[in-house]
Amino acid sequence: MSSNNLQINFERLKADIEELSEIGRAADLGIYRTAFSDGDMQARKWLKEKILSANLEHYQDGAANVHGRLNWNNEQSSIMTGSHIDTVPGAGHLDGALGVVCGLEALRVIKENNLNLNFPMELVAFSDEEGSFNGMFGSQALTGDITPEWIHSAKNLDGSSLMDAMKKQGLNAMDALSAMRPANSIKAFIELHIEQGPILDSKKVPIGVVQGICGLQRWEISLKGVANHAGTTPMHMRNDALQGMAEFVSQIDRIIEEHGSEISVATVGRVELLPGAANVIPGEAIFSLEFRDTSEAILNELADAFRLTLSSLARRRKLMFEFSVASDIKPVSCDDDIQATISETAQNMGYQYFSLPSGAAHDSQKMAAITRAGMIFVPSKSGRSHSAAEWTSWDDISSGANVLLNSLYQLAK
Amino acid sequence: MSSNNLQINFERLKADIEELSEIGRAADLGIYRTAFSDGDMQARKWLKEKILSANLEHYQDGAANVHGRLNWNNEQSSIMTGSHIDTVPGAGHLDGALGVVCGLEALRVIKENNLNLNFPMELVAFSDEEGSFNGMFGSQALTGDITPEWIHSAKNLDGSSLMDAMKKQGLNAMDALSAMRPANSIKAFIELHIEQGPILDSKKVPIGVVQGICGLQRWEISLKGVANHAGTTPMHMRNDALQGMAEFVSQIDRIIEEHGSEISVATVGRVELLPGAANVIPGEAIFSLEFRDTSEAILNELADAFRLTLSSLARRRKLMFEFSVASDIKPVSCDDDIQATISETAQNMGYQYFSLPSGAAHDSQKMAAITRAGMIFVPSKSGRSHSAAEWTSWDDISSGANVLLNSLYQLAK
Repeated sequence: MSSNNLQINFERLKADIEELSEIGRAADLGIYRTAFSDGDMQARKWLKEKILSANLEHYQDGAANVHGRLNWNNEQSSIMTGSHIDTVPGAGHLDGALGVVCGLEALRVIKENNLNLNFPMELVAFSDEEGSFNGMFGSQALTGDITPEWIHSAKNLDGSSLMDAMKKQGLNAMDALSAMRPANSIKAFIELHIEQGPILDSKKVPIGVVQGICGLQRWEISLKGVANHAGTTPMHMRNDALQGMAEFVSQIDRIIEEHGSEISVATVGRVELLPGAANVIPGEAIFSLEFRDTSEAILNELADAFRLTLSSLARRRKLMFEFSVASDIKPVSCDDDIQATISETAQNMGYQYFSLPSGAAHDSQKMAAITRAGMIFVPSKSGRSHSAAEWTSWDDISSGANVLLNSLYQLAK
Repeated sequence: MSSNNLQINFERLKADIEELSEIGRAADLGIYRTAFSDGDMQARKWLKEKILSANLEHYQDGAANVHGRLNWNNEQSSIMTGSHIDTVPGAGHLDGALGVVCGLEALRVIKENNLNLNFPMELVAFSDEEGSFNGMFGSQALTGDITPEWIHSAKNLDGSSLMDAMKKQGLNAMDALSAMRPANSIKAFIELHIEQGPILDSKKVPIGVVQGICGLQRWEISLKGVANHAGTTPMHMRNDALQGMAEFVSQIDRIIEEHGSEISVATVGRVELLPGAANVIPGEAIFSLEFRDTSEAILNELADAFRLTLSSLARRRKLMFEFSVASDIKPVSCDDDIQATISETAQNMGYQYFSLPSGAAHDSQKMAAITRAGMIFVPSKSGRSHSAAEWTSWDDISSGANVLLNSLYQLAK
């Protein structure tokens, strides 16, 4: 196969990435293309023009997902690729955008080469992946996961609604209910994305073959002791809630080692002490715990271990322990055949590759509900993401785009 | 001496405590007599009337400290007692007020009995002990610790100034500079106060003989790591600032045991994580550390041990460690002779007593700079203080008031 490898037009791809990165840019503060903002709408217009000038068919569904179609007919199922072009506030130029522009380039190369295809091909840019409103709006609409209530309740941090934001741009959010695609209309989906983690960068490997997307549980935990005067309460007469929390935080590595997998992670990222004064012993510590893995069984085992550690230290320290589960998102496996296609393609093209999980959420995890889904990762410099400091070398981008192109062609031909 | 013991008039004392506790009371929210508020001014007026009706001489100095004087002359040094009648917001009925009312009762009993005295006696209610503005205003003015700059800069949490607050009540804050007393004008000072801690209550001992008032150091500490995505950053590639803080908090007991005294205490009461989101590894932990002891040498040894632990764990964990000293208050010893007088008095009256430090700050620590100072503690139920739940049994109050009365008489006769 090596001799038959297709090649992306690197200069064209690079120019597209650079053009798109100027849309919504606020000088050195990064890119602002939050969903349905003017920057986002301008990027959609840019993408539409690129699709049309590549002689692909432009289609916008009810969720305002932008599609570019090759050999489209309404009878055959398609090979789909894509990601999103909306961003977090102050974003870098790659998250989401890279997968859309590389997908566009892949379809362009296949179109230009007049290659015979057994299946139509489809590029997609999903709406509001980043969650300016509820998050993964476009892919959830496409996979039939949203309801009228979901649409009505979707609000951003300022309290403004998805309904109003779309209306301002001449769109009707309720149309998203019509965007649902029958399961058999998509034969396979591949998303290329930056890793947003440090693994490929630290291993100097350009291609990541994603095994699955981590599920997660997010807990809100409270340990309650007794607030007391920090000067007059002897050490042995204290019920210090922070001491309990510190013991728990110090046990996280042990719990991951004993009950997790090699890829399990757990984080306490938010802490509030009450009353929270330097001269008062903390009466209550309220904190988040988030843990992720690609295996639901391991997530459940970790949950048991965290609960056991918390309840036993609380009993010993005479603290009251309460928790609630704020999020419980199931892990998703990537399709084995698609993983194999990506691996073989990388191998044939002479690129090193490495199998790894995705710790971050992606539209692919929604797509996996209705089709075979896979992901290609390229390295993120120092794992940086959701920041203007996000960076991937042009060599790695070129390698990733070529693996995407040839993997898609393998599936479509 | 036992047969010669003076006795307070318990019913009169109880009535005074109850009357004063109604001034500034906001139903079940507790008492609001913050310094120079209308409640505070009403309490001063009440105290003035009590002083005059006991045939004591009323005097208000430039810092608006209220004095009640017995056998006063401007030549002899006085035996002084007192505390403060201002409160924190939502206070109980005893903090400060008890020491003033018991002091008043002591002078009344001595006056009524026409006892011969070698020294004049003096009751004082110090202004703004609680720090509605800068704190310990009255005792610092009396001991010559304040300057015009201090007075100008004294502001409360709302930003309103001591100058304005006093002006509204017809007082001139600058007059406080005239309140300074020569060191030889006071022969001894005794303050009765509730313990504000749990020691006497847990030991069921009515009288505490205070050995000294703890000094304290308060630090602002920062541990800096790297904020990163909680899903994509493997456990072994993290620089989690909270993990460093948790290790430190878990070492506090060990450090107190190895480097502190039996009475040393240390507290982390305030924590801020940055960026402080459930899905981001903490990049920085900013927290307070406060430690107290009655020995300056021990405070210094604790400071060294805390610094060593923080700097070595930061080095091992690749965190950046910085701290600043926000407060450094030297400990104060109570006068040995006055401690002995209080202990002997309690012994002679058949009350159990126990020597202990004061973990909280008091006007006495300022007074110790210009005279021999001592303190008598009575139990605080469960150590509660600065709260409407503050409580001491009438029996314990009666015991404390009698020990104060007879100790003062021993010093003055």
